[in-house]
Amino acid sequence: MELITGGVTAAKGFMAAGVEAGVKYENRKDMALIYSTAPCVSAGVFTSNVVKAAPVIWDREIVHGGQDVHAVIVNSGIANACTGRRGYAYCAQTADAAASVLGISRDSVLVASTGVIGMQLPMDKVTAGVSKLAAVKADTTAAGDDAAQAIMTTDTVPKQAAVTIEIGGKKVTIGGMCKGSGMIHPNMCTMLAFLTTDACITKELLQEALRHDVQDTFNMISVDGDTSTNDTLIVLSNGQAGNPLIAARGKDYEIFCEALHAINETLAKKMAGDGEGATALFETKVIHAASKEEARTLAKSVICSSLTKAAIFGHDANWGRILCALGYSGAVFDPEQIELYFAGKSKSILIYKDGQAADYSEQEAAEILSEPEVTVVVDMKAGQASATAWGCDLTYDYVRINADYRS
Amino acid sequence: MELITGGVTAAKGFMAAGVEAGVKYENRKDMALIYSTAPCVSAGVFTSNVVKAAPVIWDREIVHGGQDVHAVIVNSGIANACTGRRGYAYCAQTADAAASVLGISRDSVLVASTGVIGMQLPMDKVTAGVSKLAAVKADTTAAGDDAAQAIMTTDTVPKQAAVTIEIGGKKVTIGGMCKGSGMIHPNMCTMLAFLTTDACITKELLQEALRHDVQDTFNMISVDGDTSTNDTLIVLSNGQAGNPLIAARGKDYEIFCEALHAINETLAKKMAGDGEGATALFETKVIHAASKEEARTLAKSVICSSLTKAAIFGHDANWGRILCALGYSGAVFDPEQIELYFAGKSKSILIYKDGQAADYSEQEAAEILSEPEVTVVVDMKAGQASATAWGCDLTYDYVRINADYRS
Repeated sequence: MELITGGVTAAKGFMAAGVEAGVKYENRKDMALIYSTAPCVSAGVFTSNVVKAAPVIWDREIVHGGQDVHAVIVNSGIANACTGRRGYAYCAQTADAAASVLGISRDSVLVASTGVIGMQLPMDKVTAGVSKLAAVKADTTAAGDDAAQAIMTTDTVPKQAAVTIEIGGKKVTIGGMCKGSGMIHPNMCTMLAFLTTDACITKELLQEALRHDVQDTFNMISVDGDTSTNDTLIVLSNGQAGNPLIAARGKDYEIFCEALHAINETLAKKMAGDGEGATALFETKVIHAASKEEARTLAKSVICSSLTKAAIFGHDANWGRILCALGYSGAVFDPEQIELYFAGKSKSILIYKDGQAADYSEQEAAEILSEPEVTVVVDMKAGQASATAWGCDLTYDYVRINADYRS
Repeated sequence: MELITGGVTAAKGFMAAGVEAGVKYENRKDMALIYSTAPCVSAGVFTSNVVKAAPVIWDREIVHGGQDVHAVIVNSGIANACTGRRGYAYCAQTADAAASVLGISRDSVLVASTGVIGMQLPMDKVTAGVSKLAAVKADTTAAGDDAAQAIMTTDTVPKQAAVTIEIGGKKVTIGGMCKGSGMIHPNMCTMLAFLTTDACITKELLQEALRHDVQDTFNMISVDGDTSTNDTLIVLSNGQAGNPLIAARGKDYEIFCEALHAINETLAKKMAGDGEGATALFETKVIHAASKEEARTLAKSVICSSLTKAAIFGHDANWGRILCALGYSGAVFDPEQIELYFAGKSKSILIYKDGQAADYSEQEAAEILSEPEVTVVVDMKAGQASATAWGCDLTYDYVRINADYRS
């Protein structure tokens, strides 16, 4: 597996675009297109929130219906959530507009929105945006960059990843982009993410690979504990790599899954590290847990703790808050048995053992907590399972951004 | 039922004290005593956190063991949590010191601690503090005030409440004090709270009344989602009111429960309103829910949402975040059916109906959100159950306080 530059246009046969449509933001790109001339099989996972945005309902029907997919239209600025019947009609109008200018069928168009909940979309601007997108679409890295920029809301950087693998002697590529900075607490998945691949794989295995991998990637990040109404992760596969069809589990499927995992983990970490207001990526690795489920529960509880996140921001080795967060996670364990480490780029130090503080240096601990990527390792000493979760610190800027988001 | 001034010394036969012991804080009271010459029956609920502070373990043994209780010794500054075997030994030493100076038995002394996790208690200062407390204890309102101040950590105001009721022709009093500002997310109960009453009631009914009432009071508040290691709520009843013993459910028990509820709700709201950095008490009332459990789940999900809390701080009617929080709560409902209102002191406005924004005035909404107590009413239109939860807004000061707590 080789990491390459690029995103949704890395795989063969995929084009993209990002344009200024003025949906809500001014003087920046706010609409994106992903397009494949060849028909794609699709797989997707969507928000578990009972309150689902209209595009989530539209996309679920198409992805679960099994139609070929040719295009995805995304807008940022307005989420098209809590918009009633009009909101769903707007999805259909957007798909119609795309079908018309791209010469494809309406039910091969997925749509996605992200931004403020409750506002209605200005459809004249959206349909004009669709035409602009179709006019400038290209299969270049630059076009992928434009799309990745256009889907950002409070994100500070675009987020893309791409890898190549070899299956049956053919080069296969998976690339993707995502956005997400606030309202990030995945339960299924929480954000917008779009992956494209030229792998030849059945819809069933594509969906299975995605659903399985999300549990250890996008579902293991959190910025603020708020599971969004719009969360969408979609993979489109157009089969242009020409590899022998992956139609059963086996070596080829495993290679594909590894590559998919690399993309998902990279994008998920980028999202957590770019959490609203964040100054650090905050990683928690739970090792030697009694079960995988318990390892996940413990790791997520730590990265979700507001108090721990604030301590990371303050570079304060207030490890009691981590113990506290493990303790209320729901997992059952003996606090006297476990060990806690802080790990940075160059060193790792023991912080807690035998039910109390280890003999560590506060200065060394503060140094580790000042790095841009901070890792806490929790050794449960109970079994063989492990899990990793990613979050970020809680800062003044998180409050500033969210006390002032709509204006 | 009559609301009176005072706290833990309001009920007959209870004394209190608060002194400077220099446990960790300087130039402020940091140790408190509650004392009853007459033996008390006790009831208590404690943190559900797997990581329990040593005093929680000590108190549970005594409260569940059924011994008479005479005194409670509390310190602030250091939580005596994650302190290993030494931490538990410190509880015994504190109880020994109190038993000796007060002339009572060691197992009639409850202890409680609140503050930084992981630090060891300076026992010389604690035992000296116990002697000071015994020397100045009094049954005055001022002594109760001193105790309420001594147990504060990041609290900005002491929190007390007291009521009188009449049972069997006798005046009965319940009073209490609590502290709690951060690491507040009750699950059983989250904070330190001490109630005293001169009611004559059996231990069984006292425990039953407490356990039941906590579900709609202390367990319905949250500041930051972090369930503490030290949460303790204790009621001491010394029977000095001389009312006929409450030994069975019935009219007298109901009167007592109402009074207990008034104290618990008052203290719980004070705690939420004084959440770390808070500028507003944020109340969510869920009405017409299908079940009590669902009503509680929905109400708590809203007051726990970081994004909603930040919007309250910004006085921004970003109601989509409330819908979002209802949607990920775990409760199942049809978003098209429910209605949302913002309510202030003088008016209430409809915000959301039929799956989309109602025709409300942004200015009126912002006015309501600028009040010191903000209420969101969610009408589920599904049944007869209701529940109320209390939290606070998320502010720069929450981050400041918690990025810098240990220093």
